[in-house]
Amino acid sequence: MKIVVIGGRGTIGSAVVKELSPRHEVLIAGRKDSHYPCDITSTASIEGLFQKTGPIDAVVVTAGDVHFESLSAMNEEKYKIGLTHKLMGQVNIVLAGIKYLNKGGSFTLTSGILTYDPIKAGSSASMVNGAVEAFVRSAAIEMPHGIRINAVSPSVLTESMPKYGAFFRGFVSVSAASVALGYSRSVEGLQTGQVYEVFR
Amino acid sequence: MKIVVIGGRGTIGSAVVKELSPRHEVLIAGRKDSHYPCDITSTASIEGLFQKTGPIDAVVVTAGDVHFESLSAMNEEKYKIGLTHKLMGQVNIVLAGIKYLNKGGSFTLTSGILTYDPIKAGSSASMVNGAVEAFVRSAAIEMPHGIRINAVSPSVLTESMPKYGAFFRGFVSVSAASVALGYSRSVEGLQTGQVYEVFR
Repeated sequence: MKIVVIGGRGTIGSAVVKELSPRHEVLIAGRKDSHYPCDITSTASIEGLFQKTGPIDAVVVTAGDVHFESLSAMNEEKYKIGLTHKLMGQVNIVLAGIKYLNKGGSFTLTSGILTYDPIKAGSSASMVNGAVEAFVRSAAIEMPHGIRINAVSPSVLTESMPKYGAFFRGFVSVSAASVALGYSRSVEGLQTGQVYEVFR
Repeated sequence: MKIVVIGGRGTIGSAVVKELSPRHEVLIAGRKDSHYPCDITSTASIEGLFQKTGPIDAVVVTAGDVHFESLSAMNEEKYKIGLTHKLMGQVNIVLAGIKYLNKGGSFTLTSGILTYDPIKAGSSASMVNGAVEAFVRSAAIEMPHGIRINAVSPSVLTESMPKYGAFFRGFVSVSAASVALGYSRSVEGLQTGQVYEVFR
């Protein structure tokens, strides 16, 4: 398969690239990527990416910013960051990518454990993850040409614990390599409308 | 209790008003309401509403537009309708309302069955409902002064079947009066972070 991983230089993205590369042609795209640059907040940039990749078998998105701050300090502008990046960034990739996906191809988006297991300062992340998961379930039933769409919902990464551990006390962290298996199940399996939870 | 129902003239809202009025002081607010006008897409209008109601024990929101259209015809602007109205409209009511809610008061927002049970043309509604539910679970753990927050998730209303029945074939519809009981459980009970599903 020819697969593009948007956010392929990040912690999860590079683990996905490592997992899929031995079996597939994997293109790495991202904000700062020189070969396949893509700013997921710009529909023009997303369209430009797909024009460069051409027809493709799978699109994986492991990109999308969200603002973390206490509920009492959140406001409309701060929620807009997650809505523009992690939610609509991923959704716009799907809307644009449908035209470029080969028959039976797939999208795999990223949500996260905060959908169901909230933490302090995580209300925007929870909101966006819940939106991504419900979007995936609904978009799955309207996809043309047997195109599939799933999400992977990781717990906090073991690799991120030094930085974010204080927000995730008591959570079982998961390695990026384990999370990458979720993307493999989505891309190389046949299910659609699924949220693959990698919580342990 | 002194309760404001934003969207209190709608099908669900008026059933909520009917359910709660015998036991409480209920203020009806809404886009076209003359006593308590409120455009939930405007933070200034929301703030103006709470300045008029003053301190309050419960805020119920049964308002929020969403755009229904086939996934293939959706775009960023059309998703923005639901994100601005039903999602951020409700969230902005919470952010502004916290200051006006009495100790132990509550917010009750509205999601819907499409979070888990998608239909054709419903991808925006699914997205927004999933976001509202995850927001409620996360906001609940950061509320000050014992303030609670829940959502009610109704199936398609029996009252709406003449208009929307074709989109909901096979769904068990529920009366607005049944749905109103979900709001009563939230307002008059003690739970928080819950999604009260009224699916049959």
